[in-house]
Amino acid sequence: MADLIEPRVLKGFRDFLPDAEIERRLLTETLERTFRSFGFVPIDTPALEYAEILLGKGGGETEKQIYRFQDHGGRDVALRFDLTVPFARFMAEHRAELPLPFKRYHISKVWRGENTQRGRYREFTQCDFDMVGSESAAADFEILLLMRESLRAIGVGDVTIRLNHRGVFNKFLAILGVADKSVEILRTVDKLAKIGEAETLRLLSEIVGEERAGRVLSFIKVGPSFEETLAAMEAAVGGTCPETERLATLRRFMVDAGVADVFVLDPSITRGLDYYTGVVYETFLNELPEIGSVCSGGRYDDLAALYSKERLPGVGSSIGLDRLIAALEALGRSRRSAGFCSVAIACTDEGLGGKYQALAARLRADGVPCEVLSENRKLPQQFAYAEKKGSAWVLIAGAEDLDKGFCTARFLATRQNTENLDYPTLLELLKRP
Amino acid sequence: MADLIEPRVLKGFRDFLPDAEIERRLLTETLERTFRSFGFVPIDTPALEYAEILLGKGGGETEKQIYRFQDHGGRDVALRFDLTVPFARFMAEHRAELPLPFKRYHISKVWRGENTQRGRYREFTQCDFDMVGSESAAADFEILLLMRESLRAIGVGDVTIRLNHRGVFNKFLAILGVADKSVEILRTVDKLAKIGEAETLRLLSEIVGEERAGRVLSFIKVGPSFEETLAAMEAAVGGTCPETERLATLRRFMVDAGVADVFVLDPSITRGLDYYTGVVYETFLNELPEIGSVCSGGRYDDLAALYSKERLPGVGSSIGLDRLIAALEALGRSRRSAGFCSVAIACTDEGLGGKYQALAARLRADGVPCEVLSENRKLPQQFAYAEKKGSAWVLIAGAEDLDKGFCTARFLATRQNTENLDYPTLLELLKRP
Repeated sequence: MADLIEPRVLKGFRDFLPDAEIERRLLTETLERTFRSFGFVPIDTPALEYAEILLGKGGGETEKQIYRFQDHGGRDVALRFDLTVPFARFMAEHRAELPLPFKRYHISKVWRGENTQRGRYREFTQCDFDMVGSESAAADFEILLLMRESLRAIGVGDVTIRLNHRGVFNKFLAILGVADKSVEILRTVDKLAKIGEAETLRLLSEIVGEERAGRVLSFIKVGPSFEETLAAMEAAVGGTCPETERLATLRRFMVDAGVADVFVLDPSITRGLDYYTGVVYETFLNELPEIGSVCSGGRYDDLAALYSKERLPGVGSSIGLDRLIAALEALGRSRRSAGFCSVAIACTDEGLGGKYQALAARLRADGVPCEVLSENRKLPQQFAYAEKKGSAWVLIAGAEDLDKGFCTARFLATRQNTENLDYPTLLELLKRP
Repeated sequence: MADLIEPRVLKGFRDFLPDAEIERRLLTETLERTFRSFGFVPIDTPALEYAEILLGKGGGETEKQIYRFQDHGGRDVALRFDLTVPFARFMAEHRAELPLPFKRYHISKVWRGENTQRGRYREFTQCDFDMVGSESAAADFEILLLMRESLRAIGVGDVTIRLNHRGVFNKFLAILGVADKSVEILRTVDKLAKIGEAETLRLLSEIVGEERAGRVLSFIKVGPSFEETLAAMEAAVGGTCPETERLATLRRFMVDAGVADVFVLDPSITRGLDYYTGVVYETFLNELPEIGSVCSGGRYDDLAALYSKERLPGVGSSIGLDRLIAALEALGRSRRSAGFCSVAIACTDEGLGGKYQALAARLRADGVPCEVLSENRKLPQQFAYAEKKGSAWVLIAGAEDLDKGFCTARFLATRQNTENLDYPTLLELLKRP
């Protein structure tokens, strides 16, 4: 016999066994239903692209992590490391074919050769939704609302969405005379929740001096209400401006739509990325705030600037699926399941394969997913198998029973058999909640 | 301004715009529902694996086509080129954690650096379903039945599934004294439908001489009925044997399950691959036989022989999604669609964003997917946008209407407005089939 090859996956990569994969499927199917009900449509793009396109202007971290190689034709290619860059390329290439504003979602895998020691994976699923080609407050609001509805649909509706406006923050920094240090400042403020106030103050002082650091820290404080925080922000930038007015409009939309209690105006939310120019937001589960934001995003000025001269503003968000699955498990709301059939038909005679399938087909047609067991084992073994696969019932029938349309139904939880059921009675029993 | 990067995808790769992606989703969702209702469960495996695992003993064509490179840690890695090899590795690695027989489906992308001139893609989706850990006729039959039900579920139920048994064919070749040439012979016979009888005879004559070529050609003829073909096969191998008995059992199952008319015993079906050892089959659409088999597979002796000493027999099948989508289009049964919402709410006042969303939320809760238009454009433009996105209705309402719960509904197909609808009347109108 030839030497065996050791069956193993690469470090940072995962197999998904049925229970885990079913959970992921149910989750993404629910998210998709929600996106679709808001008028968002799916797209797909290649896993492999020209490295030039994915790397754009290049960038330290990305360049180090990306899976890049030469293909058979000697082309410099790479696996996508996110869904945003391919979407930008997609919009530049297809914008003439798409109705604007364009609302799309994209749930797919991405790859990063990251250090796996921090519990990160090298292959993971991203779930993005964006509306591009609109500068309206209605677009901002729709993404915020969709974040909330998506999470509610999967069973974690008790959330707080903390939002801010990068434009107001930048205006404040300009007034403070430190606009040139905004990237550094925003990145420091972004760490507030993680490192605490004192450490943030210390780091900010190193960048802009103690006095201004104090003013920044005071600017990013959350007030007792949306209105009061907004008033403080307005005061800090010398009165209302289009950016604060955008926040006021969003607040009015929230009240009108009856969802105001979900949203907190939080000037400390900055999102690390330079990319964002308008509203930015993060979402926390009220029952598990410590796991961090499960859904974040913001408004950007020009999605496809690297590939097209036509400006394409938009707003979007991304759901952290792995984090969300961990949260659902911690909350005991996981939908992990072994299968989709609540009924299995036992095999007590190998010659009856066709008749078992006929009964199963009848049940499926009546809305009862039903599997046929194929191995003529002892019944206790068949019960154990059915239980492992998540069945609640096992049906037992011999040739005569099947011809007459009768069977015995065993309820696995109580080990009770109900005998001599005719088909209508059986169906009623199986459909009982 | 920096130089722009040309937005383009690699040759052989594709973007899926919403209409095409929606069609693919609806198709795979329907297939998944069918697989699940038979007790099949999903798994997922990494796109990237050790090259050693994917290449196994190596093999000419595969080795040339596979995307293979060194990762950051200097590992020899490759993108999967099918779902069968990763499944074999998966079973060898996880068999102790899985209930046997294990019924799984896997719908996912694979990559091959093929010559794209033949209209082939370098990235495409495979859809496999298998039952492993069973040698029973019931398992063979379930896969056959599931092929039929899957195709019926997506709207192409008028099919012929042509099946054969590799074991009977091999027995016949042994009797003929040409067992050592079986691979060549089976590959030649596999081309029969494509190259015709005369050419097949000529090629076979080159391999086994004219007299035997004639006998092979006579062996692979389809008789007037399943029973008569089976009788001829039995005669050719010197009477019944376990392999012909398996075919007889399958025939009985087909009759008992009321699906006999779908299946044809066709001794010319061999499937090219050495891999198969038992039943093999191909599926043709009766309305479009010329496009070739849309679903094929067979029984194999030992799935994971490269990675494990434990024998793992099984039976499975694969649906050709791209071919099937082409077929659905040719038959005018494509489910290509621009969106999932039949209703759009017009934007006639930018300040009403919250109230539009409140109406939309109410409709969604009542089972009507509904999108909110975000741009305050002229109404004809909004109608055109909604139509492009597949909406049938546009709702129009001012501030007062919304507060009172009234609106106007425009049916885009007839351009007719119905005014002053209260909510219950609106809902009834929108839900009317």
